[in-house]
Amino acid sequence: MSNRITNSLPVTDMDMHGDPYSSDERPENLPYVHKVGVPPKQNWFTEFKTTLKETFMHDDPLRSFKDQPKSKKFILGLQAVFPILDWGRSYNLTKFKGDLIAGLTIASLCIPQDIAYSKLANLSPQYGLYSSFVPPLVYAFMGSSRDIAIGPVAVVSLLLGTLVQNEFDPVKQKKDYQRLIFTATFFAGITQFALGFFRLGFLIDFLSHAAVVGFMAGTAITIALQQLKGFLGIKNFTKKTDIISVMRSVWTSVHHGWNWQTILIGVSFLAFLLLAKYIGKKNKKLFWVTAIAPLISVIISTFCVYITHAEKKGVQIVNKIEKGVNPPSVHEIFFRGENLAKGFRIGVVAGMVALTEAVAIARTFAAMKDYRIDGNREMVALGTMNVVGSMTSCYVATGSFSRSAVNYMAGCNTAVSNIVMSMVVLLTLEVITPLFKYTPNAILASIIISAVLGLIDIDAMLLIWKIDKFDFIACMGAFFGVVFVSVEIGLLIAVAISFAKILLQVTRPRIAVLGKVPRTNVYRNIQQYPAATTVPGILIVRVDSAIYFSNSNYIRERMLRLLTDEEEHLKENGELKSSIHCLIVEMSPVTDIDTSGIHALEELYKTLQKKDIQLVLANPGPVVVDKLHASDFVSLIGEDKIFLTVADAVITLAPKMEP
Amino acid sequence: MSNRITNSLPVTDMDMHGDPYSSDERPENLPYVHKVGVPPKQNWFTEFKTTLKETFMHDDPLRSFKDQPKSKKFILGLQAVFPILDWGRSYNLTKFKGDLIAGLTIASLCIPQDIAYSKLANLSPQYGLYSSFVPPLVYAFMGSSRDIAIGPVAVVSLLLGTLVQNEFDPVKQKKDYQRLIFTATFFAGITQFALGFFRLGFLIDFLSHAAVVGFMAGTAITIALQQLKGFLGIKNFTKKTDIISVMRSVWTSVHHGWNWQTILIGVSFLAFLLLAKYIGKKNKKLFWVTAIAPLISVIISTFCVYITHAEKKGVQIVNKIEKGVNPPSVHEIFFRGENLAKGFRIGVVAGMVALTEAVAIARTFAAMKDYRIDGNREMVALGTMNVVGSMTSCYVATGSFSRSAVNYMAGCNTAVSNIVMSMVVLLTLEVITPLFKYTPNAILASIIISAVLGLIDIDAMLLIWKIDKFDFIACMGAFFGVVFVSVEIGLLIAVAISFAKILLQVTRPRIAVLGKVPRTNVYRNIQQYPAATTVPGILIVRVDSAIYFSNSNYIRERMLRLLTDEEEHLKENGELKSSIHCLIVEMSPVTDIDTSGIHALEELYKTLQKKDIQLVLANPGPVVVDKLHASDFVSLIGEDKIFLTVADAVITLAPKMEP
Repeated sequence: MSNRITNSLPVTDMDMHGDPYSSDERPENLPYVHKVGVPPKQNWFTEFKTTLKETFMHDDPLRSFKDQPKSKKFILGLQAVFPILDWGRSYNLTKFKGDLIAGLTIASLCIPQDIAYSKLANLSPQYGLYSSFVPPLVYAFMGSSRDIAIGPVAVVSLLLGTLVQNEFDPVKQKKDYQRLIFTATFFAGITQFALGFFRLGFLIDFLSHAAVVGFMAGTAITIALQQLKGFLGIKNFTKKTDIISVMRSVWTSVHHGWNWQTILIGVSFLAFLLLAKYIGKKNKKLFWVTAIAPLISVIISTFCVYITHAEKKGVQIVNKIEKGVNPPSVHEIFFRGENLAKGFRIGVVAGMVALTEAVAIARTFAAMKDYRIDGNREMVALGTMNVVGSMTSCYVATGSFSRSAVNYMAGCNTAVSNIVMSMVVLLTLEVITPLFKYTPNAILASIIISAVLGLIDIDAMLLIWKIDKFDFIACMGAFFGVVFVSVEIGLLIAVAISFAKILLQVTRPRIAVLGKVPRTNVYRNIQQYPAATTVPGILIVRVDSAIYFSNSNYIRERMLRLLTDEEEHLKENGELKSSIHCLIVEMSPVTDIDTSGIHALEELYKTLQKKDIQLVLANPGPVVVDKLHASDFVSLIGEDKIFLTVADAVITLAPKMEP
Repeated sequence: MSNRITNSLPVTDMDMHGDPYSSDERPENLPYVHKVGVPPKQNWFTEFKTTLKETFMHDDPLRSFKDQPKSKKFILGLQAVFPILDWGRSYNLTKFKGDLIAGLTIASLCIPQDIAYSKLANLSPQYGLYSSFVPPLVYAFMGSSRDIAIGPVAVVSLLLGTLVQNEFDPVKQKKDYQRLIFTATFFAGITQFALGFFRLGFLIDFLSHAAVVGFMAGTAITIALQQLKGFLGIKNFTKKTDIISVMRSVWTSVHHGWNWQTILIGVSFLAFLLLAKYIGKKNKKLFWVTAIAPLISVIISTFCVYITHAEKKGVQIVNKIEKGVNPPSVHEIFFRGENLAKGFRIGVVAGMVALTEAVAIARTFAAMKDYRIDGNREMVALGTMNVVGSMTSCYVATGSFSRSAVNYMAGCNTAVSNIVMSMVVLLTLEVITPLFKYTPNAILASIIISAVLGLIDIDAMLLIWKIDKFDFIACMGAFFGVVFVSVEIGLLIAVAISFAKILLQVTRPRIAVLGKVPRTNVYRNIQQYPAATTVPGILIVRVDSAIYFSNSNYIRERMLRLLTDEEEHLKENGELKSSIHCLIVEMSPVTDIDTSGIHALEELYKTLQKKDIQLVLANPGPVVVDKLHASDFVSLIGEDKIFLTVADAVITLAPKMEP
């Protein structure tokens, strides 16, 4: 341990030393070749438990329960299910002030949106309001996000509408249609609850960001196109949602189906809404302009229609809207027969899409305000809220992007803003719904169009293009799938491409050739560091992935090809003497290996042996070392062929190498 | 460049220097902090082309065609399709001697097996012989494996038999049953050809080694159980393949269905076969004993039955076997209607399973003799052979494990041994098939049982258990799926678990905490290297996977949790002063990052900023660096926060750290 090392750096100096591998020459940080650690052998049961824990309980949700008395555990359990019991204790008037203002603001935004969105789901307008009354209340008690605004949203309304419409006609089989909507809502809730309860929330991560961006943009276009019906006052409109069917519908009705009064109302108020949106965007303080513009539009346009009696000139109006609070709907849910299966299928899809939206919102705002969201608990809350909703005449509710943003900007502090909104909606239902009778459908179309345009995130798409071309393909696949075929197909394409990407990465990992970065002992990809120099007689490669059955053959063949390439290259240059005598495989990125992978290594070893080339491994991780030992691969190639670093291996194997 | 560094190693010495971070103290290999390389910007089209090439043409099959005149290219093209034109030119008598002996040996083994296996596929015995005549001939011209023995195999015969049996009754609808077999064979060939031609061969790698081991063992058990019919001479036997149905069948017929003469023949010859097998295993030179034992058994037992007229005492015999060469069967293939769809579906499954077996064999022997197999070309050869086979009354042929091993041990040199075998089978068909009339079914059952027992690889299972528990689950899933349900379900389970494993690995990657390995500058997992010491005030973590949408949230949350854990730990120890001020993320294993991943990093950065913790990255790879720049993440955290190595980062950020 007392070896003082005098070390010279520049290459020219080094050469003068004569014997280049006297112990003095060794770089200071490699006084001796350090052994590769073999982690302590774990019991397979412990190992299994750890894997299970990391998969399902990685955020350690029971941490606070540890070492607590029973009564405390009970209270903690209650608080886990109803976070309001936790934050409610420190609730005060200052907080309430913020929540009140935010609640009133989102209420003014949600009432016109609710009425409009229920049309997307082919339901009577009051169902939108119902869904903004019960679910936000339930969420306020169980949810952990402080900023999310709960209620019906455009994408889920359209998705639910088109899926259920495939089964029942919303006009001719109105009763069955509604029943299937409630059934689907029930199962959407059950799905969400189950995912959260069994801690399978990570499944929604499989819908990649890129796919969601494309899906949302496509759905926005589809929804906007659907609004041409109300916007132009067309009576015979296609039920399909793809752009070609819709444009054909619009075109065939151009001569007799359009109504100029409707168009006038629609266009002028759309202009007004877009202007309000622009103002809110330019000046963040004026966000309330954006927020109350829809309500103002509804009030003004309803008033105009009422006094001009435009409804007699072909302007379609809401006409009938039930007064009163949500009626119960438990008995309307299909609990048996084939409609149960249909409702289940639709519910699972709608529930997953709704979850994706809500969890994304909750996470975004939690990151902005720096508090923690437990995705799985959030799902339990959302699920419960939809199950309760399905029994009280609500359809699938979730977090709304636009209203949550308004909620945040209006200064909400807790979920109490949702309670305030809910109360305003209750008042509306009880008192003023009849006033919406003369609201023209065109204004609802304008509100929807201006709302969904925000879902088209061109900047995000450009960024995706810049960062990752494969992601962009997923994004565009989802987008065009939704626009040209249907919402379901778009969703399917998005999921399929996302999966394909994962599989491709695992099937064709990168294999890099490494070289020595000048004046360091570090070996890096020579493509990334063109100044890095390879070591004569030694080929150093790095495998950039776990070695699994899906890529083990590829990895083996790829390494052999690199070897052949290198040998051919040497031959061409006439450097026959310095042919490769050693292959160093840098294993740092190899996080795992399975039986196929070990077979591939064994085969590689055998092939190399025939060519008189040594196989050397550098820095295998704990799991890999463990498995290499278990399979006796280590004794096959020799324990001394496994090094802590590439530098160690090179020093040991190429003592005559120039530095 | 002229800085001569005098460096002292032992810690105690170091302390004496006073200022511990004078430039002299810097380890020799870090004379200055090296910049992280940004790879030259690539055109996205080039990038796309490279990805495409790596995915489909990674083995560069057109390499030899480069810079060649047209005529040469034509010859090379011909040789690529018919490798016989290549190796045939250097073929000589010495090689033929080996091939002749090997060919005769595998012929003697294949004839009884063929007759037996055609029973597994519910076909008349001559079809097995047909399938050992045409396909090996085609393969000899097109295939590149020198050791594989082509013909019908047990697993594929059973799979095809059970799948087609679900559609038509093999006895009552014999004609349709046969036609569907040929249709399935045709599409199996087309599938194999297409996979090879479009270079999608890597798809078969998705059936993991572990899953194949389990599937094969399960199928072996199932096949052996099926033989109880012939072995015990039971007349009414279930058509299901699961163990419960079969055992019930055996049990219900115990009193009146068993035939003692049959059992006697079966048991005695099974004992003989197993003994022969044992001898071959003990002494590798006596492999021929194993190889010819089945033929000897057939000859002896047939002779015995013939003279004792045992067939009149209830011993079931082959009875009828057509004489003559393969009749054409093109007109029997269903080229339209729903039977086409059925044939296609069955063909795809059977074709894939057959491929898996053949490619595994070809690769194994190629590795043993050190020559190269192009998996995709091999698939084209196998596909062509089965398409031609389907038109000449053959059913799906592939490489047989047992016969290929015998072929190899008998000293085959090229595919000529397959031609020899094929000629012997031709002779058999033309001349001696009538002699098989009195062959008892029991002997065929014994041959099948002794053959398939070799498919149960207990050692491989134990190794899988030792190496990878998840693989073991896949293995057992496939095994029990086949044994207790059906061959298709077993296959499905195997594929599903294999996929789940890949997804799990990408969804829950390992995040390791790193420490400094004593007396080096290397930072490694502290679990693997318990001697490694963490750096006060700095948490160093390594992400062991590409950061993708499926894991980005997990990775972010996991890192924050590690941070919280560490801080709590420090608090408990009262080390409030040395709280974490820096998080170093070692990115070496992060081979790729997508938009979701970058979002996660951005969120992580924001969260850390609020806690006054610096975010530092070490050694991001070329793709990652590229994307971090493209997304402006680098300018967000600052270019000086990205280091070549963890050691660089630690030295820069913790100058007061003790070494």
